[in-house]
Amino acid sequence: MVATAQSAELILAPNADVETPALVVSEEILHANIARMAAFARSTGVGLRPHIKTHKTPKIARLQLAAGAIGITCAKVGEAEVMVREAGVQDVLIAYPTVGASKYERLVALMDHARIIQAVDSLAAAKLISHTMTKFDAHMDVAIEVNTGQNRSGVPYGKDTIELAKEIVRLPNLHLVGIMTHEGQANSAPPDEIEGIAMTAGRNMVETAGAIRAEGIDLPMVSVGSSPAAFYTPRVEGVTEMRPGTYVFNDNSALRYGQFAVGDMAARFVATVVSRPAEDRAVLDTGSKSLAMDPSKAHPGHGYIVGHPEAVIVKLSEEHGVVELPAGEDDFNVGDRVEVIPNHICPTVNLMDELFIVRDGHIVDAWPIAARGKVR
Amino acid sequence: MVATAQSAELILAPNADVETPALVVSEEILHANIARMAAFARSTGVGLRPHIKTHKTPKIARLQLAAGAIGITCAKVGEAEVMVREAGVQDVLIAYPTVGASKYERLVALMDHARIIQAVDSLAAAKLISHTMTKFDAHMDVAIEVNTGQNRSGVPYGKDTIELAKEIVRLPNLHLVGIMTHEGQANSAPPDEIEGIAMTAGRNMVETAGAIRAEGIDLPMVSVGSSPAAFYTPRVEGVTEMRPGTYVFNDNSALRYGQFAVGDMAARFVATVVSRPAEDRAVLDTGSKSLAMDPSKAHPGHGYIVGHPEAVIVKLSEEHGVVELPAGEDDFNVGDRVEVIPNHICPTVNLMDELFIVRDGHIVDAWPIAARGKVR
Repeated sequence: MVATAQSAELILAPNADVETPALVVSEEILHANIARMAAFARSTGVGLRPHIKTHKTPKIARLQLAAGAIGITCAKVGEAEVMVREAGVQDVLIAYPTVGASKYERLVALMDHARIIQAVDSLAAAKLISHTMTKFDAHMDVAIEVNTGQNRSGVPYGKDTIELAKEIVRLPNLHLVGIMTHEGQANSAPPDEIEGIAMTAGRNMVETAGAIRAEGIDLPMVSVGSSPAAFYTPRVEGVTEMRPGTYVFNDNSALRYGQFAVGDMAARFVATVVSRPAEDRAVLDTGSKSLAMDPSKAHPGHGYIVGHPEAVIVKLSEEHGVVELPAGEDDFNVGDRVEVIPNHICPTVNLMDELFIVRDGHIVDAWPIAARGKVR
Repeated sequence: MVATAQSAELILAPNADVETPALVVSEEILHANIARMAAFARSTGVGLRPHIKTHKTPKIARLQLAAGAIGITCAKVGEAEVMVREAGVQDVLIAYPTVGASKYERLVALMDHARIIQAVDSLAAAKLISHTMTKFDAHMDVAIEVNTGQNRSGVPYGKDTIELAKEIVRLPNLHLVGIMTHEGQANSAPPDEIEGIAMTAGRNMVETAGAIRAEGIDLPMVSVGSSPAAFYTPRVEGVTEMRPGTYVFNDNSALRYGQFAVGDMAARFVATVVSRPAEDRAVLDTGSKSLAMDPSKAHPGHGYIVGHPEAVIVKLSEEHGVVELPAGEDDFNVGDRVEVIPNHICPTVNLMDELFIVRDGHIVDAWPIAARGKVR
C-alpha cells in the first residue's frame, strides 16, 4: 500500500461513515470548480449559463447563480420545472428541440416564474409552438439550434439557419432571440485539435448570426456549449454566452484533455470490495445501475480507481464491478473501500437520488438530486 | 408506410395519449410472460423465485407471487426492503455478496416480516454476518454463492465451496441453507451452446451440494438463475429453485435466443422524433438517461425500433437517440412516435420512476417503480 501518495487524492477519511455504493462530492473542489468557470466567463465577457443536466441538483444551481451565472440550461422541460420551482431560477434555455403541445403548455405555466427560451431546429416544431402559444395567448422566446459539425440535431449553420430564422419571425407569438450550438464534435477529437474545432464552430456561429441580423432581424444571443471546448469557443468575438455542464464535478473523460487532474474531480463514486474470488480479481458493489455504462477515452475500463492506476474495472454488470488487479496487489480485500472517478459523471448522477457532501473527509450533508429522471 | 404489418406489433394505438419518452408495458403480454414461466417451473417441479431487479415494481412482484412464485430474489438490501414492505413478500434471497454491518442490521429489521437468505462467497463476509447476528441476538439463513463459470463473484464449485460450507456451519448464529449460482456464462455464449453450458452448470451445482451433504450438512436449496438458461438448468435433477428475471418483460437481448418474438416483448420505450435534420438521420427524444447504454448481440444499435428493422439507433447521447435511416424512409417525421425494444430492459427500468400500463392500446395505469435506484 502506497498510503501517503494515495490518500492525498482521496476525499473521504478512512473512518468516514458511509454506506456504499454512494456518490460523494467534495464541497471544497465543487466550490473551486464553480469559481474557476465563473472567473473564466467574466474574463471573456460572455454570460455563463451552465447546463444543469450534470448535477440536476437545485442546491448546485443556486451556487452557480450566486457565482454569477446569468441563468441555466436544461435539456428537458421536467428539469426546468424542478429548477424554477425548487431553485428559483429565473432564466432558462431549453437547449433541446422539444416537440409536443403538452410540453409547450407546461412551459407556458413556467413563464409566470421565469423567462424561458426554447430551442427549435425545424419549421414543424416552430409552427407547433406558435400554434400552442396562440391558443394560450402567450409568447415564447425561441433560439435556433445550429449544427456546427456534431451532426446530431440542429440546422446546418449558414444558409439553412438563415432561412429558418426568416420563417420563424413570420410566425405569430414567437420571438426569435438567438442561435445556439452544441459543438460536441470537440468531444471525439484528439486533445490537440479541440481548440481549432471550437474556434471554427464559434466563428461559423457568429457569421451566421451576422447574416441573420443583415436580414433586419434582431438577434441578441449567440450561445455555445461543450465541456472540452469550454475554454476556447467563448473567446470568439461575438459569442454572447456559454453553457458548460460537467465542470462542476469533472470526470474521467475530462482527465484526458490535460486541463484537469484528479484533485479537480469533485464527485467520487465510493464502493466496497464485496468479493475477492481470485488473486487477480475483485468485485465492487457498483455496476451499470450506479456507475453507468459510458466508455471513456482517458483510462481503460469503467472508471478510474483513485490511487490504483493499474487496477482496471474491466466489466460492469448491473450491481457488480469486476476489477482486474495487477500482480501482487494487496489492497482490495473484502470490506475495503475505494473511490472511483466515473467515466461520465452526468449519467452517474442521474442514477442516484442524492449527493453526499464531504467536508474535511466526512459526510456533512445530503443534497437531493431533485431533477433526476426528469426525461420528459 | 407498411402500416398493417407494423401496427400488429405495436402495443400503443396511434391516438394513445402519452408524453414521451415513456416506458409502457402491455398488461396482456406481461400476464402471458408471467404465466408461461410459472407453468414451466411447475412442469419441472422447481420453485420459482423471480429476480425483481428487472421490474423493481411491487405490483409486478405481487403478480409473480399470485402465479405461484415461492418468494423473490433481490441484489441489494434496499430492494428487499421495498419488496417486503410494499409488496408483502415473505421470502427473499439476497443473491449478492452483501458486505457491511449496517446492511446486515437492516436485514435483521426485515426478518420480523420475512424470511431472508443472504448469499455469501467469502469467510470474511460470513464472519461479519455471524458477528452482527450475535450482537443482535438474531440468526441469518445463508447460501453460498458458487462460481460455475461466469467468473464474476462466487466460490469455485466443488472443493472450495465444500470447504467454505464446513467453515460456515461452525460460525454462531448462521444457518447454511443452500448454494446458489448465476450461470451468467450462458449470456455470452452462442445460442446453440446455451443448453450445454446450462446443464453442465446445473450438474456441477448438484454434485457440489451432494458432497456438502456427505459432510453431514443439511442443504435443502440448490438455486440457479440466468435468463437465457432459464428453460434448461432447472431441468437438472436436484436443482430446487430457479431465479429468472427478464422474462416478465423480455428485451432485445432475448430476441437472439430464438425463444422469443417481438410479440413477447411486454415493455416498450415510446419515443418521439424531435429532429429530422437529414434524409438519413432522425433524432428520438430518448438517450442513455432513459434507454440505457447497454449493447445488444441481437440487433445492431441501441434498441430495436418495432416495425422498422432497417432503422438503426447508431448513437445515444444523454437525451438524444440518433437514428440512421434507410434510403426512402418516409416515416420519422418530427412529431412521429415509435416503440423501441430496449437492448437490456433491467437498466432501462431502473432509470424510470413509473411503468405505464397499456390495455387495448391505451394507458390505463401508472405503477411506481418503487425499488428504482435502491443500490444500497
